[in-house]
Amino acid sequence: MEDDWKVIYEDWSPKKQPAREALTTLGNGYLATRGAAEEADAGGPHYPGTYLACGYNRMTSDVSGRKVENEDLVNWPNWLSLKFRIEDGDWFDLEQVKIINYRNELDLKKGVLRRTINFADKHGRETSLESRRFVHMKYHHLAAIEWKLTPENWSGKIELQSALDGTVTNSGVGRYSDLAGNHLQPLETQKVDDTCILLVVETKQSKIRMAQSARTNVYADNKSISPDFEIIETEGYIAQKLTFNAEKDTTFRIEKLVAIYTSRDHAISEPASESCNAVHRAGSFDELLISHEREWGQLWYRCDMELEEGEYTQMILRLHIFHILQTASSNSIDLDMGIPARGWHGEAYRGHIFWDELFVFPFLNFQLPELARSLLMYRYRRLPAARRAAKEAGYKGAMFPWQSGSNGREESQELHLNPRSGEWDKDNTHLQRHVGAAIAYNIHHYFEATRDLEFMSFYGAEMLLEIARFWSDIAEWNPERERFEIKGVVGPDEFHTQYPGSDKPGLNNNAYTNVMAVWVLEKALGALDQLSETRKEELFDELNIDEDELERWKKITRKMYIPFLENNIISQFEGYGDLEEIDWDKYRKKYDDVQRMDRILKAEGDTPNRYKVGKQADVLMLFYLFSVEKLKELFNRLGYDFEPSYIPVNVEYYLKRSSHGSTLSRLVYSWVLSRSDRQRSWKAFQKSLESDFEDVQGGTTSEGIHLGAMAGTVDIIQRCYTGLEIRDGVLWVNPRLPRELKSLKLRIRYRGHWIGFSFTQQKIKVKFENGWSPKVEIGYKSKVYAFGQGDQKELEI
Amino acid sequence: MEDDWKVIYEDWSPKKQPAREALTTLGNGYLATRGAAEEADAGGPHYPGTYLACGYNRMTSDVSGRKVENEDLVNWPNWLSLKFRIEDGDWFDLEQVKIINYRNELDLKKGVLRRTINFADKHGRETSLESRRFVHMKYHHLAAIEWKLTPENWSGKIELQSALDGTVTNSGVGRYSDLAGNHLQPLETQKVDDTCILLVVETKQSKIRMAQSARTNVYADNKSISPDFEIIETEGYIAQKLTFNAEKDTTFRIEKLVAIYTSRDHAISEPASESCNAVHRAGSFDELLISHEREWGQLWYRCDMELEEGEYTQMILRLHIFHILQTASSNSIDLDMGIPARGWHGEAYRGHIFWDELFVFPFLNFQLPELARSLLMYRYRRLPAARRAAKEAGYKGAMFPWQSGSNGREESQELHLNPRSGEWDKDNTHLQRHVGAAIAYNIHHYFEATRDLEFMSFYGAEMLLEIARFWSDIAEWNPERERFEIKGVVGPDEFHTQYPGSDKPGLNNNAYTNVMAVWVLEKALGALDQLSETRKEELFDELNIDEDELERWKKITRKMYIPFLENNIISQFEGYGDLEEIDWDKYRKKYDDVQRMDRILKAEGDTPNRYKVGKQADVLMLFYLFSVEKLKELFNRLGYDFEPSYIPVNVEYYLKRSSHGSTLSRLVYSWVLSRSDRQRSWKAFQKSLESDFEDVQGGTTSEGIHLGAMAGTVDIIQRCYTGLEIRDGVLWVNPRLPRELKSLKLRIRYRGHWIGFSFTQQKIKVKFENGWSPKVEIGYKSKVYAFGQGDQKELEI
Repeated sequence: MEDDWKVIYEDWSPKKQPAREALTTLGNGYLATRGAAEEADAGGPHYPGTYLACGYNRMTSDVSGRKVENEDLVNWPNWLSLKFRIEDGDWFDLEQVKIINYRNELDLKKGVLRRTINFADKHGRETSLESRRFVHMKYHHLAAIEWKLTPENWSGKIELQSALDGTVTNSGVGRYSDLAGNHLQPLETQKVDDTCILLVVETKQSKIRMAQSARTNVYADNKSISPDFEIIETEGYIAQKLTFNAEKDTTFRIEKLVAIYTSRDHAISEPASESCNAVHRAGSFDELLISHEREWGQLWYRCDMELEEGEYTQMILRLHIFHILQTASSNSIDLDMGIPARGWHGEAYRGHIFWDELFVFPFLNFQLPELARSLLMYRYRRLPAARRAAKEAGYKGAMFPWQSGSNGREESQELHLNPRSGEWDKDNTHLQRHVGAAIAYNIHHYFEATRDLEFMSFYGAEMLLEIARFWSDIAEWNPERERFEIKGVVGPDEFHTQYPGSDKPGLNNNAYTNVMAVWVLEKALGALDQLSETRKEELFDELNIDEDELERWKKITRKMYIPFLENNIISQFEGYGDLEEIDWDKYRKKYDDVQRMDRILKAEGDTPNRYKVGKQADVLMLFYLFSVEKLKELFNRLGYDFEPSYIPVNVEYYLKRSSHGSTLSRLVYSWVLSRSDRQRSWKAFQKSLESDFEDVQGGTTSEGIHLGAMAGTVDIIQRCYTGLEIRDGVLWVNPRLPRELKSLKLRIRYRGHWIGFSFTQQKIKVKFENGWSPKVEIGYKSKVYAFGQGDQKELEI
Repeated sequence: MEDDWKVIYEDWSPKKQPAREALTTLGNGYLATRGAAEEADAGGPHYPGTYLACGYNRMTSDVSGRKVENEDLVNWPNWLSLKFRIEDGDWFDLEQVKIINYRNELDLKKGVLRRTINFADKHGRETSLESRRFVHMKYHHLAAIEWKLTPENWSGKIELQSALDGTVTNSGVGRYSDLAGNHLQPLETQKVDDTCILLVVETKQSKIRMAQSARTNVYADNKSISPDFEIIETEGYIAQKLTFNAEKDTTFRIEKLVAIYTSRDHAISEPASESCNAVHRAGSFDELLISHEREWGQLWYRCDMELEEGEYTQMILRLHIFHILQTASSNSIDLDMGIPARGWHGEAYRGHIFWDELFVFPFLNFQLPELARSLLMYRYRRLPAARRAAKEAGYKGAMFPWQSGSNGREESQELHLNPRSGEWDKDNTHLQRHVGAAIAYNIHHYFEATRDLEFMSFYGAEMLLEIARFWSDIAEWNPERERFEIKGVVGPDEFHTQYPGSDKPGLNNNAYTNVMAVWVLEKALGALDQLSETRKEELFDELNIDEDELERWKKITRKMYIPFLENNIISQFEGYGDLEEIDWDKYRKKYDDVQRMDRILKAEGDTPNRYKVGKQADVLMLFYLFSVEKLKELFNRLGYDFEPSYIPVNVEYYLKRSSHGSTLSRLVYSWVLSRSDRQRSWKAFQKSLESDFEDVQGGTTSEGIHLGAMAGTVDIIQRCYTGLEIRDGVLWVNPRLPRELKSLKLRIRYRGHWIGFSFTQQKIKVKFENGWSPKVEIGYKSKVYAFGQGDQKELEI
C-alpha cells in the first residue's frame, strides 16, 4: 500500500497553502526548507537549523553594557528561487493561470516532494510542469530541485531565472510583524562559472556566515543544452538568467543543485569555498536521489511503526515520524542543537527549545539514542548558564530557562501580543520552573534505555544533581504544616500565572511541579549509586555537596506538600478550589473557538486566573509520565493516599475544565484514558493525530508544526498502547490495543539490542534481531524472560 | 617528593629560552599559550587550537577557480601582553637589567607557571617580580596572569600596560619566513569599562572570529586601588595604561583575567559579547586557581604513572603526560580537532595532523577513551575528502592525506626548504600512503580497549572498510611472482623517496607498508563479524561491496609480497639491498650532527636515496606495533618464515644504518630491544625522554614539542615494560621492568573499568577500583583471571 506513505493534495488552495507548506517542509536536521519555487507562490519562508536561533528579538544589554540585538530563528537564503516566463510575458504565477490539473505529493518513504501542474495562460498556451525536490538526508549540505517543463501546444522562447536570494525576511508569523525581521547581512555575490553562482551572507547579530552555491543545468529531451546566459546581481541576491527556445512536445529538464555551508560547520576551511567545491563535485539530481532514498530507507527500517487500522491513521503517524527525523537527525549531532517546539518548520516560538522535548525523547531514546544523547549535550553545554540563572534568582543548583536559545540564557518574552485585543500582555510563563524537571526526566529515561554509563558519569549525573539541588533550595519548610512547599511558580497550564487579585506573579504548590521536584530528588539520589566512588567524590568536591544536603533531599521526598480538593482530586495548585467555575455555554455561544480562552477573557478585560479553566490539565501530566505503581510509591512515601481509582476521577474533573488550548492537551487525555476507556482514548488519539494535519487551531500550523504533539502521538503508539516500560532493569510490555487497532509492528533499540515487536489483540511477538550486548530481560504479566541476539518468542495475551 | 612534579630553570638564558618556552607552554585543548609577558621577552608566539589550522601557506585554486589562500596554524592574539616601567624609564626588559635572582618553575601537578625575578635597573632600583599564570583546565575560555611587584629599595611611579595584541604574526619557524605570516584581520577594539577591554579579529582565509576580553585589577597589599586609567588603541591592538605611585616594600598585585571565544564555539550567541560577559562573571585569580587545580587533580588521578627510579625520569615522564593532556583534552571534544604532530606548542608542521597520532592513541585509549573517540571522529568527518583523494589518484576506497588540516584535503608541501643549502627541494613525502593504515590501527585498538560497538557500527567499520578497499585496489597482482605488490609509495623513513637514477617518485614494496596493508585487510574483514547483519547489509549496499571484493581482500592477506635480504633481514623496500653503504665516519668527522643526513647529502649535491641510511628504520616499526605471535601469524599466512630470533638480527642491521633523524626512531629501538636487551632498551628510553627536554635536535623543540615522541615514551612505560596487550578479548600483562625501574604504578580504563596496576621486579598487583561493566579477563603467563568491580589480586613474577 503506497498511499499510506504519501501526503497528497489534489487541489490548489491559496488559503490552505501556508499550512500545507509547513506540513510538506523538507529537512535533514541541518537544513530545512519550505515555501516554494515561484511555481507556487512568491517564495515562502525557508527555515534554518537551530544553531542560528539566538533569542527573542529585542534590544538588551549584556552585563558589560554592550548592546546586543538578539535574533529570532534566522531564515536561510532562499535556494529554491526558480521562476520562468514565456516570450517576455508575465512570470509564471499559479494564481494567474488556469489550472487544468494539479497534484502535490509528499513521498514520506523517499523524502521527496513532487508537484505536477497542467495549466493554460491567458494566451491559451498549455504547459505542463513537473517538479521534484529534496533536501539530502545523507549529504546534508546538499539540496536539489528539478523541473520538467513541457509546452503542450506551443513553441517559443522560455526565460528561466534561477536565484540565490539572501533578501528573505522573517515574515511568517503575523503577530511578530512589529519585530525586526531582517537578519541577514549580504556579504558577497559571485558568478563562479557559466553554470554556477555563489551567495554569502552573515547573520546580523550572531555573525554566522552562510554560503550557498547553486548549479543550474538545462536538458532538452535529456540532452544538455547551453541556454543564453546572463547574471543578475543586486545586494544579497544573485540569479542566472537562462534563455532558450522551446519546442512543442519537447520536455525541458532543469536541474538546480545547491550546496550550503555555514561558518559553524566542522571539517571545512571556509564556507564559500566549500560550497563552491561541493556543488561542483555533487553528482546529478538522479544520482543524489539514489543516496538520499537509501538513507531514508535505513531510517524507516529503524523507525517505522506499522499499523493495521487504515491508511489515514498510518499516513499521519508516518508524517509525524518523518518530521521528527527531519528536525533532529544524525546530521545534527555535531551542531549543538536542541529540539525546537515548532520543528524547523516555521518562525513561531522563534526556534526556541522548551520543555516540549519531553514528548520527543521517548521516541529518540528507543530509536536513535545517539541523537537523544546529543540533544542532552545541548543542555549540558548550557549548564553553566542555568547555574548562573539560579544564582541570580537566589537559588542554588541549576535553573534551566523556560525558553532556551543559543547561549542558554532565558529567552522568554516579557510581553506577549494578544491578537484578539491587540494589546501586549505581561507574560509570566518563564516562571515555569518545571522545565528542569523535564530535563531530568529525559536524562533518566535516556539512561534507562541505553545504560550509557559514560554519559551518566561525566555529564548526566552532574545535571541531575544540579537540578535536584535547585528543587531542594526552592522548596521551603513550613513549620506549621510540617511540609515543604514551592511558591511563586507557574505550572504547564499557562492559563494560570497568578492568584486573582494578587499583583505578584506565580502560584503556590503547583501539584505537578511539587511531585516532579520529589521525583527529581529521588532520581538524583539514585544516580549516585550508579557512579563509581571516585566519580562521586569528584562531583561532591566540585559541586560542594555534603551529607547534610543529601539528608535534606531525602527529607523532601518524604515531606513535600501536595494540595488536594475533596474526593481525591489533586488540586492543580493551592487555592485552585477557590476559583470560580467558568460558564462554558456562555462563551461557546459567543465564540466559534474557545481553545484560547485566555485570550478571550483578557480581551474582555477578564482573566483566566479567576476561573477553573485550563489550557491543559497539568495534574493529568502526572498520570501521563508515571505508572500507577510509581505514583502510589511517590504519594505513599509523602504520606498521602493514592489508589488507581483516583485516576479516572481526576481525569473527569479536569477534562470538564480544559479548553484544550495546547496541542499537548488531548494527547495527555488519550494516554491517561488508555487503560480505563480505550474507546475515548482512541478518539482523543485520532483527534491529536489531526491537530496539525487539519490545522485544528486554525492557522497555527503554518507558523510551524507542533513537534511535541506530533511526537506524542508516536509515543502513544510506541509506549502507551504497548505498555512498554522499563522497571527495575526489566523491559515490560503490557499491550492494550484499542479495538480499532488490529495489529502494530515496531522496532526499538534497547541497551544495545534491536528488538522487533509485533502486537495483535491476541499475541505479542518479540524478536531480537541484532545486537551487540549481553542478554536483557523482557517482562510480561509478572513473568520475566531473558533474550539475546537472535532469540524470539510468542506470548499469548 | 615535589621536585618530580616540577620543571625548574634557575638561570636566565636567552639562548635556551625558545626551547624552554615550548616546554613550558600552557594549554587546555582549546587555548594554548607560550611566550611571555614582557617581563621575559618581546612577546613570543602564542599558539591556538587546531581548528584554526587550515593548510599550507600557498595560493591554490579550488575546483571552482576561486583563489584560496590557505593558512598555517593561526596564532591567538597575545593576551599575556603586560609590561611596566618605573618613572617614565625604559620598559622592563630582562636583558637590560641586572638579574639578582631568577627562578622559573612549571608546576605539572597544578598546571601553573611561576616565575620569580629579583633585579636591579641601571639606576640601582631593586625590584622583585613574581608572576603566576595558568590556562584554565575546566573553564576553557579563561586564562589568567598575576604579577606581584615589590619595590625593594625605592618608591616612585609605576606605569603598567596591559594589552590584547592582535598584531601577532607567525614567526616562530625560521625556514617559513618567506611565507605570509600575518593571518589576523583586525575587526574591533573597545574599552568596555574602566577595568575591561575587548579585541576582535578574524582569520584572513578561514574567516573565524576570535574575541578576547581582559580585565586588569591592581591591589596594593591586597587592597584594590584605582590607578590612573588611559586606553591606547591602534589597529588590532588595545591596551590599558595604568599608572600609580608605588611605595618601597609594598607589594602591588596585578591580576589580569582574560576570556577567549571564537565563532566556532558551541553554546554561544556571538563571541565578542560572550567574552565580555565571561570575563565579568569570572571570579578572582585565586578563585579560578582552585577550580583549575581541582581539574588537574582529577586528570592526574587517572593519568599519572608513578615510577620508582629517580626524580629526573619521573619529572620528564610527567611533563610528557602533561603536554598530551594540554594538547587534547575533554575541552576539545566539541572542536573537531585532531592530534597535531607538534602539539599546539609551535608553528612547525603548521598544526597539521600526521600519522604521529599513532603514538598518542595507546595512552588515550587506556586513559581517556572518550577523547580517543573524538579524535577518530576528526578522521571520520574527513572520510569524504579521503574518498575523493583516492578517486582522483585512480583508486577505490579512502586515501587519507599525509598531512591533514581543516577540510581533510592533502596539505603536504610540494617543496621543502633545505636550511643547509637554502634550496627548495621537491618533497614527495605525501606518497606516504601508510597514514591510512595508522588510522585503521587506531580504530582497531580504540575498539579493543573499549568495545564501543556503537562507534564501530556507525563510524569505525565504514572507515576500516574504505581504508582496506584502498589497499586492495593499490595492490597489483604480479602473475610472474604470483604475488600482490604495492608500488610507488614512500615508507615512514623519509630519507628514501625514489630509486637512485630514477625520475619517478616512490618505491616498490615497502615492507612496512605491505605488511600494514595485509593487517588492515584482515582487521576490516574481522570488523564485519562485529556488526549486526542489518548494519553490514547497509554498509555493503552503501559502499557497494560484494563477495568478490571480499575474496580479493582475503587473497591479498595470503599473497602479499614482502621483500627479504639475506639472513632473514626484511628488506626495507624492494631493491634496498642494491643501495650503497654510507661512510658514517667520513660524515661524522665533517659534521657535528648527522641526524639529518638527508640535508647534508642534498647540500653536497648527493641524495640519501643512494644509500642504506635511514631517518628511522621503518622495518622495525613492525616489531613495535605487533607482538612476535602476531607477526608470525601474518608472515606464515603469507607463506614466509618468521621466528622470534629474526627480531634482534633485523634490529642490529637497521640500527647501524639509522641516523635517528626522527624523534620517533630511538623510541622504536627502546621498544624492540625491551625483550632482548633491557639495558640498551632503558638507555634508548632515557635518550628518547630527553629528545625535547634537552632539545637534542638542536633547535627544533622551540618550533614545537614532538608530541608523538613524548607520547611514545609514556607508552613504553604503559605498554612495553608492562607487556599490556589485548589478545582474544583478554588483557594480558607480561612485565619486564628494566633493572633501574624498581616499581611502576598506573591506572588504566579498560572496557568500562578503572584498573590500578602496580608492578615491581617481583610482583604484579591488580586492583579493579571502579567500573560499571561486566567482568573482564586479565591474563598472565597463560593463566586467565576474571575481575569485576572491587576485585584485586597479587601475582608473583
